[in-house]
Amino acid sequence: MSPLVANESRESADAPQLAKRILLGDPLTSEQADEQLLPKRMALPIFASDALSSVAYAPQELLMILLVGGMAFLSFTPLVAGAVVLLLVVVVLSYRQLIKAYPSGGGDYEVASTNLGEIPGVVVAAALLVDYVLTVAVSIASGVDNIISAVPELNPWRVELAVGFVILIVIVNLRGVREASTVFAIPTYVFIGSVAVMIVTGLVRTVLGDAPVASSAEFAVQAEDLSQAAVILLVLRAFSSGCSALTGVEAVSNGVPAFRMPKIRNAQTTLAMMGAIAALLFAGLTALALISGVHYAEDPCALVGFDCANPQPSLMAQVAAATFGGGSIPFFLIQAATACVLLLAANTAFNGFPLLGAVLARDGYAPKALNTRGDRLVFSNGMIVLGIAAVTVLVVFQANLTTLIQLYIIGVFVSFSLGQIGMVRHWRRVLRGTRAKTVAEAAPLRRSAYTGLVINSAGATLTVLVLLIVTITKFTHGAWMVFFAIPVLAVLMVGVKRYYRDVEHEIAVDDATHFGSAGDVAIVLVNRLQKPVVKALDYAIAANHDKTVALHVALTPEDGTQLQREWQRHRIPVPLVIVDSPYRTYAQPVEHFIREYRSKHGPSVVTVYLPQYIVGHWWESLLHNRRARRMANQLMLVHGVTITLVPWLLDSSELIYGRRSRPVPGQERAGRPVAVYGSSGRRAQRPAGPPDAG
Amino acid sequence: MSPLVANESRESADAPQLAKRILLGDPLTSEQADEQLLPKRMALPIFASDALSSVAYAPQELLMILLVGGMAFLSFTPLVAGAVVLLLVVVVLSYRQLIKAYPSGGGDYEVASTNLGEIPGVVVAAALLVDYVLTVAVSIASGVDNIISAVPELNPWRVELAVGFVILIVIVNLRGVREASTVFAIPTYVFIGSVAVMIVTGLVRTVLGDAPVASSAEFAVQAEDLSQAAVILLVLRAFSSGCSALTGVEAVSNGVPAFRMPKIRNAQTTLAMMGAIAALLFAGLTALALISGVHYAEDPCALVGFDCANPQPSLMAQVAAATFGGGSIPFFLIQAATACVLLLAANTAFNGFPLLGAVLARDGYAPKALNTRGDRLVFSNGMIVLGIAAVTVLVVFQANLTTLIQLYIIGVFVSFSLGQIGMVRHWRRVLRGTRAKTVAEAAPLRRSAYTGLVINSAGATLTVLVLLIVTITKFTHGAWMVFFAIPVLAVLMVGVKRYYRDVEHEIAVDDATHFGSAGDVAIVLVNRLQKPVVKALDYAIAANHDKTVALHVALTPEDGTQLQREWQRHRIPVPLVIVDSPYRTYAQPVEHFIREYRSKHGPSVVTVYLPQYIVGHWWESLLHNRRARRMANQLMLVHGVTITLVPWLLDSSELIYGRRSRPVPGQERAGRPVAVYGSSGRRAQRPAGPPDAG
Repeated sequence: MSPLVANESRESADAPQLAKRILLGDPLTSEQADEQLLPKRMALPIFASDALSSVAYAPQELLMILLVGGMAFLSFTPLVAGAVVLLLVVVVLSYRQLIKAYPSGGGDYEVASTNLGEIPGVVVAAALLVDYVLTVAVSIASGVDNIISAVPELNPWRVELAVGFVILIVIVNLRGVREASTVFAIPTYVFIGSVAVMIVTGLVRTVLGDAPVASSAEFAVQAEDLSQAAVILLVLRAFSSGCSALTGVEAVSNGVPAFRMPKIRNAQTTLAMMGAIAALLFAGLTALALISGVHYAEDPCALVGFDCANPQPSLMAQVAAATFGGGSIPFFLIQAATACVLLLAANTAFNGFPLLGAVLARDGYAPKALNTRGDRLVFSNGMIVLGIAAVTVLVVFQANLTTLIQLYIIGVFVSFSLGQIGMVRHWRRVLRGTRAKTVAEAAPLRRSAYTGLVINSAGATLTVLVLLIVTITKFTHGAWMVFFAIPVLAVLMVGVKRYYRDVEHEIAVDDATHFGSAGDVAIVLVNRLQKPVVKALDYAIAANHDKTVALHVALTPEDGTQLQREWQRHRIPVPLVIVDSPYRTYAQPVEHFIREYRSKHGPSVVTVYLPQYIVGHWWESLLHNRRARRMANQLMLVHGVTITLVPWLLDSSELIYGRRSRPVPGQERAGRPVAVYGSSGRRAQRPAGPPDAG
Repeated sequence: MSPLVANESRESADAPQLAKRILLGDPLTSEQADEQLLPKRMALPIFASDALSSVAYAPQELLMILLVGGMAFLSFTPLVAGAVVLLLVVVVLSYRQLIKAYPSGGGDYEVASTNLGEIPGVVVAAALLVDYVLTVAVSIASGVDNIISAVPELNPWRVELAVGFVILIVIVNLRGVREASTVFAIPTYVFIGSVAVMIVTGLVRTVLGDAPVASSAEFAVQAEDLSQAAVILLVLRAFSSGCSALTGVEAVSNGVPAFRMPKIRNAQTTLAMMGAIAALLFAGLTALALISGVHYAEDPCALVGFDCANPQPSLMAQVAAATFGGGSIPFFLIQAATACVLLLAANTAFNGFPLLGAVLARDGYAPKALNTRGDRLVFSNGMIVLGIAAVTVLVVFQANLTTLIQLYIIGVFVSFSLGQIGMVRHWRRVLRGTRAKTVAEAAPLRRSAYTGLVINSAGATLTVLVLLIVTITKFTHGAWMVFFAIPVLAVLMVGVKRYYRDVEHEIAVDDATHFGSAGDVAIVLVNRLQKPVVKALDYAIAANHDKTVALHVALTPEDGTQLQREWQRHRIPVPLVIVDSPYRTYAQPVEHFIREYRSKHGPSVVTVYLPQYIVGHWWESLLHNRRARRMANQLMLVHGVTITLVPWLLDSSELIYGRRSRPVPGQERAGRPVAVYGSSGRRAQRPAGPPDAG
């Protein structure tokens, strides 16, 4: 392996490579992939941060929508929050079934495409992709909100902060999955612990008769006079927003392959733990917010008594301030942990999105580049795509949490619903499959299948119902954009699949595929007589073609005459042909020459030699005409032509890449580009092509 | 020429090419360059639009600065405007001398570099480049101002309008010089005519005792209490801003080669006409503005009585409204002509900047790409660079005329000054040169040189003086940016020159350059056994290398085994070597293989065959791994390796480029990529390399 080691040391001499290594760490071999598997205590923070962190915004959005109807509507809170918790329990149970049946990490996408067909599968995939982007956007927006709640001076830099955090997370994730989990474990546990302590403290104080009072408790809201239908719609809208607490539940089912053995058991346990913690935190925080009288308004200026030039503190900040005191250490600890866990919840998407992208690429629904693992064994391209999409969404919506929440959840419930319906089909197929077996054999299978059928049927019914509610209550509030994006993505994916299928078919080797191209002519393109051209000529001679011609495209007659003189003076052993170019193009006269040649000498494969500068710095490429590249691109369109690029490393590139393209004087080396003419015994046996040409 | 015709029709089948043709017109041959020369009546609007149009903003900026001191300062106007007119006359006379002495179109750059040396020449070039960009920005900003003065509803789209106009002008200019002049001639003449009529009308009305009154005549300005030094500084600042009337005078001297014969005479006449018209319009407009009592303020809110939420109408609009009435047809005609001539004045820069860029590129001070004429005989790259720079400046300064004017003129006077000093040196050299001649011979020469010396000495003295005034009065108002940009550009140019010199030297053929590379090995890279790979194998066989090997880089052992099986099944007559890639890289194992091979078999030139997909639509390239390109780039760094790209045209590209890379069934064609193995007589004579490898 010494050559590879040598290469490594060469790479580290390269400055951009070095920066890449420092930021991303050393490359990993494929075998090291196994060592990257996650124990439960690490998997929980990685896959659960999304679901857990959503308790930081779900209660707030729930209460906020209810408050639109006036203070009296807050009495609906226990009912709505209870419905959300019930739904959470059902969905968690449903996903435990899904993990058991489909442990490969395909999640809802795999379930839907296996059981419902291609189109539902693709729709689920599109919905999930959209939702991963929104998970990043919503989590980061809420995280920045919580930071601003603690440090209001940062308010003017809301969008810049959000974008900065996305970039930071992309870099951390490009380093690979395990380091990421170590970074993320601590704040997640601190968040769970500190919020739990806060809830217990608040409830104990309430029992002792010293209930915490939020700073916004005194602010009143004008009650609107609503019809009964509007009341129901508002309560349902609040429920829809509260359902954002459920987002992220599916993350574990997509991440099963990253768990240590026994994968299914461990994943199921993690999912259950996550569900229990999320339900407790959500319920406790909602209760405490109600008790302390938090009034969080969609439009802060609607709060009578609040100076709406200032940012409205988040529900979490208000509850923490009420419980522990505004400037206290526990307050800042909770805000910091909340911000961390929210910002890092975006990480769930950076695990899920590239994995789903790779699965889609493998299945032919997405560009192949998404299925290429980078140096650090992560799907770098998917991470970069997600990062760009999230930054775009954050900038367009100015990192406004309430606007983003309106777009959120639709995608999750589309995939929940189709996944659950698929699971129902799956269990019914399993049941049908047991008919041929003996009762003794079939009994445990049938039992498990019946359990699954009941749970997933309940899950399917509820999630479809919620999807309907969410759609009805959010469509005009921005969710139509998601309803536009999902089909567009789905159609694109189907199109990509078709494209790959057509190309596969087009290039498949068939019975008509045989060898036998005839003729072998080399054309060396000469602009001015300089070393790179001499190297190309030298290589063309060494390749011993049937015929070798040097071709000069003359923009002015003087150029041609001068080259002709130099050619004779240096006695180059290859015939020089000069062609005119009335339109100052380079490729067309060459094409014309090839056609003329073939019409005279019969069919042949033509190899065009093009010298190509290799530069050391990016800015140098601005100073060279990209004429060689452009000519290569144009000549490759000509029938029966191949392009041979003869590289010429300029000194700057040799400094950087640590090689020498020319031999050190007095040192004879292999395949040297510019060697001593006539000194090689071989040379004499390799005459150039006949001197006539064109 | 039939092949070229065939190519043309092929190109028109290509949709982007077609769009290019419609926008830019058909390509022109080099011989057609002569037919693009300009008669005087066309050259005047092209080269003079900048200088003439500046009367639309120069009086306004002059009066505006004076008004900063209070209403009483307006009495300085005749003095300051007279100084500007005097300066204009001197500069025009000086440039007539320059045209006579240096008719090649190099203008101040050529004069300074010939007479003063490299650094002054480069500084002049940098100053001119900066000023071309600002000419575009100032003209467009002022044009948009005048449009908004007539149609105030457009005010919110100021920047968008400005950027749109730049893009429009770039497109018009990319079509080529003569069409541009036809488009530009009419508004320039309409502008001259209508403004002249307005001035005459206004003066006649004044003489008849019915002097026009501007809408802003009633608005008062608070007088500031200024020290005497501050008064002088303010007057000088007003003079500096008024000098913007002089910008564009040098345009003719840079455009002499575009004139019809006799070039010098015609250019001088055009310059004189331009100077006379500009002086008359400037003086007349300033007088009329004073008479009608136009009060134009730097900060519109300083005007007592003006509602500064509205845009302030331009001086031209106020004078036109006062003379002809606000909603009258002549008012709109003048505003339209002013806007047109201002927007089109930017065109002067689109003639000058690319020409100067090409001269600099020819001399090695700028990237060679600036000296490449496009299809339409214009230096397209220079135009695109100018367009991008102007858009950037307009966006950064929000198309604010007053801010932009602060940056303007510095560059012009830097080049004026150095050009005039250079001319003084030139005439003194001419005088010295006459000493050896007889008096009879020398007399006319000496007479002409003395005239030149006197005129250019006066010009040099005045322009240096003005440069000092402009620098002192504008430095803190933003001109420091220009003082930063000019040296940076100059240093860059000198650096580019050094770079080209070093590269030239590096690649020059010297005594040590000889032929004689040894060995000839072909490596065909095989990923999966598909038609493009078969084509590459076929071509490698046809090229009859000393040895041909197929190489597969296996990321997983299964890939390798499967390929091996297919290889045997198809009985491919080339040995297949499989190498592992623990780091999932493709280039490193190939590099390693080459090194091993050379250590066993001795030195040799290695040709690596890479199949390359050619796609028809840009989006298709997103769906293919750019693995071939990346590998080519990496392998070109390996000593003694050349890359042969074997193109494979996918069906989509064949549809678009109208070719067939594969023969129609039953139709045998030259160099066909996938031919019938064994059907060719030649095939039998061309065995593949020996079967052992690696």
